[in-house]
Amino acid sequence: MSRIVMKFGGTSVADLDRIRNVAGRVKREAEAGNEVAVVVSAMAGVTNTLVKYCQDLSPLHDAREYDAVVATGEQVTAGLLAIALQEMGVEARSWQGWQIPLKTDGAHGKARIASIAADELVRRMQLGHVAVVAGFQGIGPDNRVTTLGRGGSDTSAVALAAALKADRCDIYTDVDGVYTTDPRIVARARKLTHIAYEEMLELASVGAKVLQTRSVELAMKERVRVQVLSSFGNADGGDLPGTMVVDEDEIVEQEVVSGIAYSRDEAKVTVRRVPDRPGIAAAIFGPLSEASVNVDMIVQNISADGTTDMTFTLGRTDLARAQATLDAHRAEIGYQDLLVDPDVAKISVVGVGMRSHAGVANTMFKALAGKGINIQVISTSEIKVSVLIAAEYTELAVRALHTAYGLDG
Amino acid sequence: MSRIVMKFGGTSVADLDRIRNVAGRVKREAEAGNEVAVVVSAMAGVTNTLVKYCQDLSPLHDAREYDAVVATGEQVTAGLLAIALQEMGVEARSWQGWQIPLKTDGAHGKARIASIAADELVRRMQLGHVAVVAGFQGIGPDNRVTTLGRGGSDTSAVALAAALKADRCDIYTDVDGVYTTDPRIVARARKLTHIAYEEMLELASVGAKVLQTRSVELAMKERVRVQVLSSFGNADGGDLPGTMVVDEDEIVEQEVVSGIAYSRDEAKVTVRRVPDRPGIAAAIFGPLSEASVNVDMIVQNISADGTTDMTFTLGRTDLARAQATLDAHRAEIGYQDLLVDPDVAKISVVGVGMRSHAGVANTMFKALAGKGINIQVISTSEIKVSVLIAAEYTELAVRALHTAYGLDG
Repeated sequence: MSRIVMKFGGTSVADLDRIRNVAGRVKREAEAGNEVAVVVSAMAGVTNTLVKYCQDLSPLHDAREYDAVVATGEQVTAGLLAIALQEMGVEARSWQGWQIPLKTDGAHGKARIASIAADELVRRMQLGHVAVVAGFQGIGPDNRVTTLGRGGSDTSAVALAAALKADRCDIYTDVDGVYTTDPRIVARARKLTHIAYEEMLELASVGAKVLQTRSVELAMKERVRVQVLSSFGNADGGDLPGTMVVDEDEIVEQEVVSGIAYSRDEAKVTVRRVPDRPGIAAAIFGPLSEASVNVDMIVQNISADGTTDMTFTLGRTDLARAQATLDAHRAEIGYQDLLVDPDVAKISVVGVGMRSHAGVANTMFKALAGKGINIQVISTSEIKVSVLIAAEYTELAVRALHTAYGLDG
Repeated sequence: MSRIVMKFGGTSVADLDRIRNVAGRVKREAEAGNEVAVVVSAMAGVTNTLVKYCQDLSPLHDAREYDAVVATGEQVTAGLLAIALQEMGVEARSWQGWQIPLKTDGAHGKARIASIAADELVRRMQLGHVAVVAGFQGIGPDNRVTTLGRGGSDTSAVALAAALKADRCDIYTDVDGVYTTDPRIVARARKLTHIAYEEMLELASVGAKVLQTRSVELAMKERVRVQVLSSFGNADGGDLPGTMVVDEDEIVEQEVVSGIAYSRDEAKVTVRRVPDRPGIAAAIFGPLSEASVNVDMIVQNISADGTTDMTFTLGRTDLARAQATLDAHRAEIGYQDLLVDPDVAKISVVGVGMRSHAGVANTMFKALAGKGINIQVISTSEIKVSVLIAAEYTELAVRALHTAYGLDG
């Protein structure tokens, strides 16, 4: 017998048939003798409709009222799933954030979980009752409804699993696991049976959109074993095995490189010929930070004739704001001109095995050189090597690296 | 300065434009120096969709989960109206039932209000903040969301007005007041400036669908002055005067008859030749009551040869169930046959002035006789005379009575 948390996203509960399907899966876990809590998102499309209502009424709407409005989507799904489970003979009840209570801080619209009172949920689960929990929401210090930000139901599920000391947190999604790379680009991509938290974090933040980054951080901190698996499963309704996200110590045969990620949502900016003096980086990146521009890679070239070039990458949606900000601060920074390139992609090689293996970066550089792909910017961390290349080479680069690191299935 | 509760139904908040329109009305009341609480229903159609979800998943769904699901509609409207008010520069916040708290009993799906904690609402209203309250909902003894039954937002508004000791409870609806009769039948029907609680109750229960009956009972018990008025108002956005529902002592020039109501949703059943013995009425109406058939008028004819005929009326939707019930109990009752007539209408003349005036019923009988309309059943109460007639004479009867009682404008 295990205690498990199951989480279903919006596409998995998009209509009544899918809610019945989810109820069937929950029933199987409960009838296998497990203690089960389920976390649900709003039915697909509902949250977008509610968000649009708020925005149409007031672009600068009160985040507290926004939360009260959008949190209703998950409440509806939780009640409906409880009804569907009861109809199948499974004891179940729905829980809204304030009823548990799942307490958060007061940062409406992007609240962080402070505590979850698990005793009553555990008591009922031990009686065989399924707890159906509305994801994405909690209650703030002022007794008002809060939400955790888009995709927050993953975080709800992991936090609940931690509070319940669950053996496993199963995240059902529209992909059936985490792959060595995007199977749409590399047909021979393999599904990973296990991946380390740190690797998942790097993959999540570089573009493999499987789990919300915050939920992975929380799982790592609380050592929650997370399984990513498909909500559609086999033809017979059984679950296909997914990917377990676990502590790296649990992974026996660790590969050096676990996966190749890419992101096309990048842009590159070069601030040309700035004075090479102390404080110049702060002069550039301070105003960008104040304008909420998230800068990713930063490279400073060596100095010549008292000036230098500063290159950085950022999300493409922030590009216009970054340009406007730098234009406004041109006099203080004292640069000559800006070079902007929105046609770039970031390719990353990720693996905790890098810590103990030399030559990982060099394998990457050779593989790309072998295909004639020019590297524009390089950035490395303990378990990741990222390069910026021209966007048109994205697929070619991913395929070459997948082969170079021996990942082809 | 007054303290007022304003209530807006589903058609008044059906889309964002109407919600903005409602916000404009609330703003005018607040800017006139009034302390304002607003009670809102779900956007038109939302509750029906949610109810259908529950029914489709399980015909015998858990009423507690049903409540959790359907109560979300009002929560959305409350949040959106608060946002619309803030956008117009009016301080406002939304309140869900559990946040106030508005406590109810545990009868999920048709809960009754037990108490409303008004202190915090009053404190904020005195600061000039508008309280936007989700109607139709409360919190039960088990800390779960309850709903008050369809149309329950009227009751929420009146109960809130009582708890707040409000000077007035304005119910905005899709009619602009209470008329002497249905203006679609009698073009010269007049809008009443005032009507007594007791009259409103009789009119509500005989078919003038303006206010939920329970809300009028509550207003009468708590002496809440209720105004019924149109949510669409004048072209310039100002309110047309509506109808005040008040204590009869407040009405200076009380007419003998205030209005003529009708209901076409009636059916008539005659149980022919039952033994004329003590207990026969109980033998007939006991089983009907157990089958939840609401019987309205009852007439027993004089006895001949030891048998009698028992005639009663009921809602037409209950007719099949009533027939089946009587068939099942035929042996015990010992009747000869059943006569059923679904083509009947009930016409009622209502007025608290009847208490002190004789001849009201006779005016009715003469007027109907003058048009050749046969009366099938008669029933009277202190402030009402009702007759059952063939349905095809409905409009003719209503017009004749409107004229006979001097109500034509």
